[in-house]
Amino acid sequence: MEQSFVAWAKMRARNLPQVKLGIGDDAAILQAEQEDVVITCDTMMEGVHFRSDITELRRIGRKLVHINLSDLAAMAAIPKALFLSLCVPNNSPNRAADVIAAEIFEAVCQAAEEHQVAVAGGDTNCWGGPLVLSLTAVGYTEGGLAWTRSGARPDDLVVVTGPLGGSISGKHLDFQPRLDVAEALRGKLEVHACMDISDGLSTDLLRMCDASNCGAILDLSKVPITEAAQQLANTSGRTPVEHALGDGEDFELLLAISPDDYPRMVDLLGPQQAIVCGEFTSRTGLWMREGGKILQLAASGFVHR
Amino acid sequence: MEQSFVAWAKMRARNLPQVKLGIGDDAAILQAEQEDVVITCDTMMEGVHFRSDITELRRIGRKLVHINLSDLAAMAAIPKALFLSLCVPNNSPNRAADVIAAEIFEAVCQAAEEHQVAVAGGDTNCWGGPLVLSLTAVGYTEGGLAWTRSGARPDDLVVVTGPLGGSISGKHLDFQPRLDVAEALRGKLEVHACMDISDGLSTDLLRMCDASNCGAILDLSKVPITEAAQQLANTSGRTPVEHALGDGEDFELLLAISPDDYPRMVDLLGPQQAIVCGEFTSRTGLWMREGGKILQLAASGFVHR
Repeated sequence: MEQSFVAWAKMRARNLPQVKLGIGDDAAILQAEQEDVVITCDTMMEGVHFRSDITELRRIGRKLVHINLSDLAAMAAIPKALFLSLCVPNNSPNRAADVIAAEIFEAVCQAAEEHQVAVAGGDTNCWGGPLVLSLTAVGYTEGGLAWTRSGARPDDLVVVTGPLGGSISGKHLDFQPRLDVAEALRGKLEVHACMDISDGLSTDLLRMCDASNCGAILDLSKVPITEAAQQLANTSGRTPVEHALGDGEDFELLLAISPDDYPRMVDLLGPQQAIVCGEFTSRTGLWMREGGKILQLAASGFVHR
Repeated sequence: MEQSFVAWAKMRARNLPQVKLGIGDDAAILQAEQEDVVITCDTMMEGVHFRSDITELRRIGRKLVHINLSDLAAMAAIPKALFLSLCVPNNSPNRAADVIAAEIFEAVCQAAEEHQVAVAGGDTNCWGGPLVLSLTAVGYTEGGLAWTRSGARPDDLVVVTGPLGGSISGKHLDFQPRLDVAEALRGKLEVHACMDISDGLSTDLLRMCDASNCGAILDLSKVPITEAAQQLANTSGRTPVEHALGDGEDFELLLAISPDDYPRMVDLLGPQQAIVCGEFTSRTGLWMREGGKILQLAASGFVHR
């Protein structure tokens, strides 16, 4: 399959100025536009991250792009190029391997084009195993201006860019990576730390705390909750805020900002995308404020009462 | 598995100055050192590219690094960083998933260190499927100085960097990527085209011809043949030169050089690494010279007589 697929993919992938040489040679050549090159990889596997008998391939391909772009947004990087590696089943009862590969490649190209990102290379192979999609995304930032997860400081605000929880009801496939937030704040606001919320606010906030060698206190009444999480809570046996804390795949950004900078953040993003739900503290670990007390909060987001 | 594995991998991966931020954040940050960023991906799959019941994991991991570095060598790039994505079986009868992941990661780190390349990120997941290893390699070249496969010109010499064929007997696991050749020639010799020989000289030479819009005539008596290919020919029913033309995974470089530059090339590499076995021609396609005649040569390397 590979040669004819590569020939088609080379035609299909749009040329963008950041790519000097795209699909078809031993490697691709990108123009280095800024001092720092930001690179992330994410893999999606049949039966682990998706079921292709339930979800259309084009939505799976699109999600893969958005997961990777979400990581670049979390670093304040401007995305430039994608590299797609596929392991395609050659024993699928419904679809030939080249049809599967082309559907995914098409979806990846479309999602890339929405964000002016090039599909510049990759590797496609058939096998008797399940479908695997692996993507590497490359972006740039000015030297030293990338946001990391390790710079949160005591008294910084815990800010999230949108309501959380219940992503499984649909948002996990249809979210938009927060490149808009990165673009609005990049170079204009001192962001002490940032990461995307992929494993749930409480888990990811604890990771940011651990990386920053501090702790955080969440005000549960301020954690923004999606309508989907409210709905799920009707039948799940968990409260809406537990969904907001513990559900994965929100792909909103989690930021640490000095309180002095918060008014400026609201100016730049609007109040809907700059939601304060706690503060960082020098006491390590994850905490919640409730009825005047400060109690430990489980990384799972389960709230003991 | 992922969190403890990531913590270990972060400790294990050696810090090199080209990596500003390595494993453990949403993405890695590399210092852009030159104008062009060269990126390649290759995937190896259980049952397609290797059998882990026959070949040790450390040799599989090492080969994966070398395949990718061979692609960077073919572009004259200086390798800087690797990103490793793993799909690890959690149902292996002999080994736990974290043991498999750690063995491969260790091998990748060792191979990377030999070439002063950093392991800067990746993604590791368990599943019920077979083992998949996917690697992205990043290197740099000066602006416009990368070698591509599309610049061969009529009358250029067809040059290879070592004997070919019979790689299956062992070299396919133990080859060294020709970074030494790239380093010796980079910026010192005008290389019109270059690629690594991964699918056999005849197939890859035809690809170079197609990309360069020209043809090539091989002198079969000058094609360098490995001892392993000679041995295989005793029992395979194919001639030694057919092995040299058609066998895959040589990972020598194939170069197009002006005849005027050849003496300089020999000065830089020595005669053992600068072996002329034909010339490019304006007539498209792949040809061989035999007994004063010019005959078509199959891309498979099969020689009709």
